[in-house]
Amino acid sequence: MPELRREPINGRWIIIKNEKPKGPVDFDIETKSFTENNACPFCEGNEGMTPPEVHACRDEGEANMPGWDLRVIPNKYPALSGEGELDKTGIGVFDMMNGIGSHEVIIETPDHSRELSQLSENEFEKVIQTYRDRSLKLRDDSRFRYIMIFKNQGKTAGASLSHAHTQLIALPMIPKNVNEELKGALTYYEYKERCIFCDMANQELRQKERLIVENKNYVAFCPFASRFAFETWIIPKKHFAAFDYIPLDMVGDLAKILKDILQRINKLFKGASYNFIIHTSPIEKRIREEYHWHIEMMPKLTKVAGFEWGSGFYVNPTPPELAAKYLREVKN
Amino acid sequence: MPELRREPINGRWIIIKNEKPKGPVDFDIETKSFTENNACPFCEGNEGMTPPEVHACRDEGEANMPGWDLRVIPNKYPALSGEGELDKTGIGVFDMMNGIGSHEVIIETPDHSRELSQLSENEFEKVIQTYRDRSLKLRDDSRFRYIMIFKNQGKTAGASLSHAHTQLIALPMIPKNVNEELKGALTYYEYKERCIFCDMANQELRQKERLIVENKNYVAFCPFASRFAFETWIIPKKHFAAFDYIPLDMVGDLAKILKDILQRINKLFKGASYNFIIHTSPIEKRIREEYHWHIEMMPKLTKVAGFEWGSGFYVNPTPPELAAKYLREVKN
Repeated sequence: MPELRREPINGRWIIIKNEKPKGPVDFDIETKSFTENNACPFCEGNEGMTPPEVHACRDEGEANMPGWDLRVIPNKYPALSGEGELDKTGIGVFDMMNGIGSHEVIIETPDHSRELSQLSENEFEKVIQTYRDRSLKLRDDSRFRYIMIFKNQGKTAGASLSHAHTQLIALPMIPKNVNEELKGALTYYEYKERCIFCDMANQELRQKERLIVENKNYVAFCPFASRFAFETWIIPKKHFAAFDYIPLDMVGDLAKILKDILQRINKLFKGASYNFIIHTSPIEKRIREEYHWHIEMMPKLTKVAGFEWGSGFYVNPTPPELAAKYLREVKN
Repeated sequence: MPELRREPINGRWIIIKNEKPKGPVDFDIETKSFTENNACPFCEGNEGMTPPEVHACRDEGEANMPGWDLRVIPNKYPALSGEGELDKTGIGVFDMMNGIGSHEVIIETPDHSRELSQLSENEFEKVIQTYRDRSLKLRDDSRFRYIMIFKNQGKTAGASLSHAHTQLIALPMIPKNVNEELKGALTYYEYKERCIFCDMANQELRQKERLIVENKNYVAFCPFASRFAFETWIIPKKHFAAFDYIPLDMVGDLAKILKDILQRINKLFKGASYNFIIHTSPIEKRIREEYHWHIEMMPKLTKVAGFEWGSGFYVNPTPPELAAKYLREVKN
């Protein structure tokens, strides 16, 4: 019989199919390639094709010239605009405001042929370090209330270019899903006086059946109420509300465990697209004791259909215990 | 500058791109065909390939034999199971219960080659009539709290068979998205003593810029805070909380307007996949005065990427005013 599992933070129910569960070979992986007739704007030597960089890691050379390891640029086609004020207004029952925000692209490597998971540990660490630096930087703009860092890898996951990159969007409001997480976490905190994410991570470390891998500072597991097959969360063992407040000496371990997970996924699902998102607390003076930043990673193995859209109610064909077992046993 | 619009019911913010907005020719429509090597279980003559029917419209012949216009069968691979009790339980911070529910398939026509939008008005009316009949029937099972009727048309929209069909799922709880709509609608009702959906529909009828078409009983429009390009809502002009409580004489007008919208979408986006979902109030003794059933229809024109998953914050490349204009001006 299928199982209904409740996501303890936002209260979403998930259907877990445990009869004939799907293993790695049962998915029909979409590996659409990009049509690349034109020069890639993210490649070394093509710096002139992008807006001027706002940040870069380079040993030599001037800004916007070759010689960099990593480059941060404003998105050429931003979802939100950096200039102006919010000008909140309403028409009848409807509310609106100007699309103020910041939309940056972090080009992870000058080399067109390498994916994030193929970077060296040292290079990967620079990427994470840059996520943190840009977050800390954008915190200072008083118009922004939330910073979202996310990666779309592959066409099926919504990427528009193949060259390895991450996106960062600074928003003038707290997004709906984040608000829900915050509310759920607060409800638990008020009741238990403990962080729900700490409790989840500890239970996963104890129960072990959904655990994939851990190191000194982080644990990676398939969450109990995974929405998607092989969904994976990475969470710091110590309680930190905001991603960009982690100390510098915790960056290396994060790079290690995220690289490890991406490699495992790629071993099981060669060339599969994926998304990951850093879930963190909003920009505000107070520290949200109830919240705990983490990364949610979802390989794109199935289509989301009408039922999911309509209900917010997901059907997962692979129990997370099984997914974790496959991911644990991957030979690296 | 992009515009941020707030969905008045659930509070979700949408980014509307109004610089270089996308028109019908700017989308790269995915029209993947199904591999159909085997006999189709939904075709006339293949009734033995499906579980026994629970309902059918037929002038002649016995149950589970040819001679039908429309057939309702239990889903052979149900997301939820019809037998047993809920057995709610918990492990640590996690909650679960048995996946009790009903999962039916409404085969809209015996003819493999026809889509829902190609049915005659009379045939289309039978489909809607069947949605209503099955909903009313399943209301009597005290284990169920919500009935969701939805259609996935085309592979990209998550359909697994090409033969025209709709799905119905009866759930033992109220899904998350529905709960959010209910809460949002109640908040508005308590403040204004009016239904937010009535106010929205009236504003659309008055403002006209997002209106597509109307008839005596229904209005179709692109919602102010559309998550997706060319998203369309159909809503009854009179206030009804639950879909299956509409009087029989309102079924014809619903069939007419839904068929009209599907035809317009198909004229603009030949062969595009789509989803529609009937949003209705839960199964309960009281009537939710604050809620108003409606249909949400979304053609699948773009991919949902990491940003949307993480934030619940959608970027819509086509302002709904422009989408409505295109849909209004389609030559039928």
